[in-house]
Amino acid sequence: MVFRSYMDLALEEAQMAAARGEVPVGAVLVSPGGEVLARAGNRTREFSDPSAHAEMLVIRAACAALKSERLPGHVLYVTLEPCPMCAAVIGAARIARLVYGADDPKSGGVSVGPRLFSHSQCHHRPEVIDGVGEREASALLTRFFAARREPREGF
Amino acid sequence: MVFRSYMDLALEEAQMAAARGEVPVGAVLVSPGGEVLARAGNRTREFSDPSAHAEMLVIRAACAALKSERLPGHVLYVTLEPCPMCAAVIGAARIARLVYGADDPKSGGVSVGPRLFSHSQCHHRPEVIDGVGEREASALLTRFFAARREPREGF
Repeated sequence: MVFRSYMDLALEEAQMAAARGEVPVGAVLVSPGGEVLARAGNRTREFSDPSAHAEMLVIRAACAALKSERLPGHVLYVTLEPCPMCAAVIGAARIARLVYGADDPKSGGVSVGPRLFSHSQCHHRPEVIDGVGEREASALLTRFFAARREPREGF
Repeated sequence: MVFRSYMDLALEEAQMAAARGEVPVGAVLVSPGGEVLARAGNRTREFSDPSAHAEMLVIRAACAALKSERLPGHVLYVTLEPCPMCAAVIGAARIARLVYGADDPKSGGVSVGPRLFSHSQCHHRPEVIDGVGEREASALLTRFFAARREPREGF
């Protein structure tokens, strides 16, 4: 149940991202004691920053707050399977556990494609739990892309 | 020769990073017209940011300056083979050409390990040119890590 309540915050962030016209992905960074240190949704458009994914933003925010490059014992909740960039920074930050919602067969980097945590060059592998809040996370993404595709059909 | 002169700027950034106690890697982002839009060395310690690699910093700076998430036609010079995180953001930013110096068999993400540009989930593959300034880039890294290991031998 605790997985689910943190994921609900991540889903709220994903909804707010959609409302800003950003791909609806949200993330929450939780301390070893259970405190929410950072929460964010994608802001790549707003920031003109291809790295401004939800996971990257919460890791940067928590690291800055703690003045540390690493977050051992911390847990990252994110609504969508991280891309290779985010999977790599999750490893670099020494996140203890990654909990994610929907799989991302097109752009994921954990369960598909480069499978970041499966190589000897990966210096840290978090525990990975998937499928938490999957239905809501997928529904948000499906609605977002469906709404964006419709106007384009006129062209 | 043009490869080499931009790489010299990246090597200067790597040297400055070493002087700050950061892993000596430097990067330069060049516009399609040949203008240096951004140059940076690693600042992960200074910023308490595990994503503050030289490549990430120049991409973010150039994207912010151009108010664009993408940098088509641009060239990234970096003294060391990018890690998986940086390789992924190079792809996300649609960088046209990646020129790097030394290989990184331990932590690289282009020629070894997850080989980011070799998967179907990779949406953009830059042209990759390696070995430019390799000797100087490797020497900087070797000196940096040797100097840091010496004091530890007393423990």
